[in-house]
Amino acid sequence: MTTEQTKQADWLQSVRWNSLEDRLDLLDQRLLPDEIVYLELTTSEQVWDAIKQLAVRGAPAIGLAAAFGVYLGVRSFSGSRGALLAEVNRQCDYLATSRPTAVNLFWALDRMRARAEALLGSATPEETTVESAQQALLDEARAIQAEDEETCRLIGEHALSLFEDGMGVLTHCNAGGLATARYGTALAPMYLALEKGITLKVFADETRPVLQGARLTAFELQQAGVDVTLICDNMAGAVMAKGWVQAVIVGTDRVAANGDVANKIGTYSVAVLAKAHGIPFYVACPMSTIDLNTPTGADIPIEERHEDEITQGFGKRTAPQGVKVFNPAFDVTPNEYVTAIITEKGIIRAPYGDNLRKLFTE
Amino acid sequence: MTTEQTKQADWLQSVRWNSLEDRLDLLDQRLLPDEIVYLELTTSEQVWDAIKQLAVRGAPAIGLAAAFGVYLGVRSFSGSRGALLAEVNRQCDYLATSRPTAVNLFWALDRMRARAEALLGSATPEETTVESAQQALLDEARAIQAEDEETCRLIGEHALSLFEDGMGVLTHCNAGGLATARYGTALAPMYLALEKGITLKVFADETRPVLQGARLTAFELQQAGVDVTLICDNMAGAVMAKGWVQAVIVGTDRVAANGDVANKIGTYSVAVLAKAHGIPFYVACPMSTIDLNTPTGADIPIEERHEDEITQGFGKRTAPQGVKVFNPAFDVTPNEYVTAIITEKGIIRAPYGDNLRKLFTE
Repeated sequence: MTTEQTKQADWLQSVRWNSLEDRLDLLDQRLLPDEIVYLELTTSEQVWDAIKQLAVRGAPAIGLAAAFGVYLGVRSFSGSRGALLAEVNRQCDYLATSRPTAVNLFWALDRMRARAEALLGSATPEETTVESAQQALLDEARAIQAEDEETCRLIGEHALSLFEDGMGVLTHCNAGGLATARYGTALAPMYLALEKGITLKVFADETRPVLQGARLTAFELQQAGVDVTLICDNMAGAVMAKGWVQAVIVGTDRVAANGDVANKIGTYSVAVLAKAHGIPFYVACPMSTIDLNTPTGADIPIEERHEDEITQGFGKRTAPQGVKVFNPAFDVTPNEYVTAIITEKGIIRAPYGDNLRKLFTE
Repeated sequence: MTTEQTKQADWLQSVRWNSLEDRLDLLDQRLLPDEIVYLELTTSEQVWDAIKQLAVRGAPAIGLAAAFGVYLGVRSFSGSRGALLAEVNRQCDYLATSRPTAVNLFWALDRMRARAEALLGSATPEETTVESAQQALLDEARAIQAEDEETCRLIGEHALSLFEDGMGVLTHCNAGGLATARYGTALAPMYLALEKGITLKVFADETRPVLQGARLTAFELQQAGVDVTLICDNMAGAVMAKGWVQAVIVGTDRVAANGDVANKIGTYSVAVLAKAHGIPFYVACPMSTIDLNTPTGADIPIEERHEDEITQGFGKRTAPQGVKVFNPAFDVTPNEYVTAIITEKGIIRAPYGDNLRKLFTE
């Protein structure tokens, strides 16, 4: 086995189309990091369940799973072209109910609907058969996957251009390959570095309260063979003071028009610590995460989550009954802490107001 | 019941001498915050066990428990004065083996030995009876307790002079009443504020990996009726950005001669965040914690602890098997981040090299 093959084998894909068996193999993320189990899904109902039950997480990964779910829902269909189109729409309506707040899910399903309409709608030439349309829907799901992978790879290429061999890189939460088709966003440069033989030493904040850093980031990087060290969130400053970190890179849930960045709680503290230590703070995201309709970070609503995540987040109660808790899911990092925002179209720096707008008009 | 009585009743004392029953009632800190159970100790063997098994923690509290343990070990002794003195020394030797690294334990036992020598040694007038010596040893243990309480109260008074009614105060780890005779160090101003009718809004970092903030600080402040809100460590920055915090106060394990401060891991991050937000960062400690023989923070050894505290700190494994972990127990906050150090002798500010030295020579 060549080195390249080994790397491929080590790579853990959360949404994996199995051509041989004509089924969707879906990594059950609920069992991570203890067990690596792939669910073998052959019906759209099973895909619906897997999304509903959080076996798959991460906006792009959910969208992908649903797209394959549409194909699974119609692959055995026999009937007229018009009936197939109706069935595709029915399957999309159904799968959309699996996670009603997931915008990326709707986006992927809308794309499957549009493909079906183009293949089977009244304006379509007669030569498309039901069989070829079914195959084309599978191809569309695979195209969505390939495009997501390419977006992440481009983000990774741009980000990696900012790093040097031997650097220490700290990340917070999980913006990794498990949440996307491949590579992730903030973790994409780590995977590409591995492919290119560049050594990065990654520090993963465990990311209380839900521990995405410990359960997912440390796990997927370790699986891939990236040099990763797990720390508690409150150790980031000490690690920086030791001179072990030359860059911070994180993902984001939304970038405002002025470059303010909403991300998992704790990101802001990391950004302040990075600035105090003269360490660049990078944000990696696809263009779709930049919302020019949100003027500033102050306009981003911050969800507060249940106190149990803090008081008994590990099954066992670790705080007194009835204690007051503040548990925001996200925080906002003001643009002055952001050294650069890295998208599939390149690296954007301040002034963000102008430069983000230009990105969309170019 | 008057308000004052209610406050007294709410106060949770970790080491409590029960005069009525002539026994030591020791709060079993292993059961916190779930249960409040006092162990009823009547022999020095029981005290030894309680220290060994970590039922009591916090250097001053351990010393206190051992001092009472000496009395319990000799209170039923009958024999000559010389034999009693030998028995006191035997009890002290025995109790010293309960936690061999606890300097405060040895200090308290040495004080009990010295008292016994003064009462019963060859240079002592004959009028001291065995019975009066036994009583005097109990009085000595109570004096140690009263002095520790007074030290903490003085620290609290000085610290409270820096606070104003309505202020938000953030603390990290537990430097509280449970670890001392009463009041604690960093938490002393919170208790005194309560007694004086001054309102402070306290934010307690949970303090990963061992969660002393969640399990102990939030618990003891809640018990006392202080307004306390529990947060994860990575939320400190977000809470400061909201303008909710006007001061940070923490304890310390050792202050170097130049004012560098070693304390629970995460303290340094909090200090950097405080500085970035223009919030004063205070360190509260007794004079005995200042070590003029340690030139700087770089000379303080930092213990690294077992990875299990991070990977399965809550019973359940929450990180992948075999992942690399960095788990320092402490970090060092350089003196430039320290707004003031508060001791029983008053408030010390920079330049710390000069001002700490003066404190010991005045």
